[in-house]
Amino acid sequence: MSILVVGSVALDSVRTPFGTAKEALGGSATYFSVAASFFADVRVVAVVGEDFPEEHLSFLKSRSIDLEGLVRVPGRTFRWTGEYGFDLNDAKTLETQLNVFAAFQPEIPDAYRESDLVFLANIDPDLQREVLGQVRSPKLVAADTMNYWINGKPEALRETLKSVDILLINDAETRQLADEPNLVRAAQKVLGWGPTSLAIKRGEYGALMVRKGRWFAAPALPLDSVFDPTGAGDCFAGGFIGYLANTMNFEEANIRKAIVMGSVMASFNVEAFSLDRLRRLTYPEIEARYKVFKRLAHFEDL
Amino acid sequence: MSILVVGSVALDSVRTPFGTAKEALGGSATYFSVAASFFADVRVVAVVGEDFPEEHLSFLKSRSIDLEGLVRVPGRTFRWTGEYGFDLNDAKTLETQLNVFAAFQPEIPDAYRESDLVFLANIDPDLQREVLGQVRSPKLVAADTMNYWINGKPEALRETLKSVDILLINDAETRQLADEPNLVRAAQKVLGWGPTSLAIKRGEYGALMVRKGRWFAAPALPLDSVFDPTGAGDCFAGGFIGYLANTMNFEEANIRKAIVMGSVMASFNVEAFSLDRLRRLTYPEIEARYKVFKRLAHFEDL
Repeated sequence: MSILVVGSVALDSVRTPFGTAKEALGGSATYFSVAASFFADVRVVAVVGEDFPEEHLSFLKSRSIDLEGLVRVPGRTFRWTGEYGFDLNDAKTLETQLNVFAAFQPEIPDAYRESDLVFLANIDPDLQREVLGQVRSPKLVAADTMNYWINGKPEALRETLKSVDILLINDAETRQLADEPNLVRAAQKVLGWGPTSLAIKRGEYGALMVRKGRWFAAPALPLDSVFDPTGAGDCFAGGFIGYLANTMNFEEANIRKAIVMGSVMASFNVEAFSLDRLRRLTYPEIEARYKVFKRLAHFEDL
Repeated sequence: MSILVVGSVALDSVRTPFGTAKEALGGSATYFSVAASFFADVRVVAVVGEDFPEEHLSFLKSRSIDLEGLVRVPGRTFRWTGEYGFDLNDAKTLETQLNVFAAFQPEIPDAYRESDLVFLANIDPDLQREVLGQVRSPKLVAADTMNYWINGKPEALRETLKSVDILLINDAETRQLADEPNLVRAAQKVLGWGPTSLAIKRGEYGALMVRKGRWFAAPALPLDSVFDPTGAGDCFAGGFIGYLANTMNFEEANIRKAIVMGSVMASFNVEAFSLDRLRRLTYPEIEARYKVFKRLAHFEDL
């Protein structure tokens, strides 16, 4: 089945304690698409500038990602520069150049209107809604957001949430969005605004999902070499939504498997800079790591 | 089977966003003993002052906790005053009065020398070793520690670790003890110093265990009402070591169940101030919550 994703395609410059990457392939739509491409057909709605390297487009095409909705316009590509400290938990943004992204008015190709699933990556909630309005009747809509929009455009975000089935968000953002320090009560409040499920990302602590009052806790894999956390959240989303698109089963048991698949894809992505680990990833490696997650979390009945 | 615990018995004054407790029953040995008493015989080595209320002793006795090693000496009982902010993650210590604890020289009663398991709660590592030397041949030794000893007495702590089977520690302390920011590498380093297992406490994010290169991730239960996190780590230890004493099976599968039992006991304890939730806790409630943890963490094979 097909997934439409709208988000950023960027050139990232990143410094971590383990090295640096300069103007490497990045962006939420990129990480999402590549992770999801292991499971389903992906269609990208995004914008790049004249300077965007052809080799990156070739790589995305090699993953069978549909780029009809990726427009190239005059100007420079969106750039992000950031660094991570020793614990690799929080990115410090050093510079954001919106460039061609500043005037981005997403218009989706006709062929994209029948997409089965939609992933609204972390962009302006007004743009998220604009894209969503152009898709005929998606079977599942998932969205990401961040503190920038929670603070800056709370009404627009609440409006978008009315049409979202699954919201992906981190725990601090959940508390912030609901203005409630207790995570359980915060989640309940957000679920009252539209989404039927919340997938709460907690970085090295894993993920929580809540749905119909039932919680699921997925672990994160303890890794002895985390090189670059950039894109982990979008790879999580890619594995998660990709697996749902592959199976088209939205029952709780299958959503739980999808959450773990998201964690699997995120765990690979942080092992190298940019998308370098996903470039050489194989499906048997994905299946093997899913089993590692199963062993990691398993305990017996009393 | 029997567990000997050495640690503090204290009077705690605590403020959280949900209320205050003044000179309430507290201390590491207290929380540990009460949690463990649901599973095994517990013997306490600790000290209190003349002012320690008789009602607290009656409560501990009502849990069948052996108090022969709890000495009462002239002076005032150890007191701790602390408060928690809105996220309830970190305690801020406002005052610590060691009082009778300052000159504590633990001497264990003859009847305690044959204890099967020993839990060295978070006290001076020299005292931990002194107590351990008085137990004939325990089948399992577990210990807790904290940043105060990691900074202040690193050699003494390393010496104690040589005799410890299971070290309970939080993730920041693991990194600090090993002087290594990556948790996996930090854990491997600490395991080279004596313990065969590390139980890494992560508060609201659950616990990790590592043993023979294999990791286990136990979730924490998302709770909608956390009133007072004081003692959660010691209740975790009490459920964990108590369950091991009850089953006397130190295979990995059983240790995993014990870790979850620790998480179960911690999840109850934070629901009320001091030991108030454990006072009215029943074993059927414990079994039911274990099942809740099982559902919380469960996902199927691919």
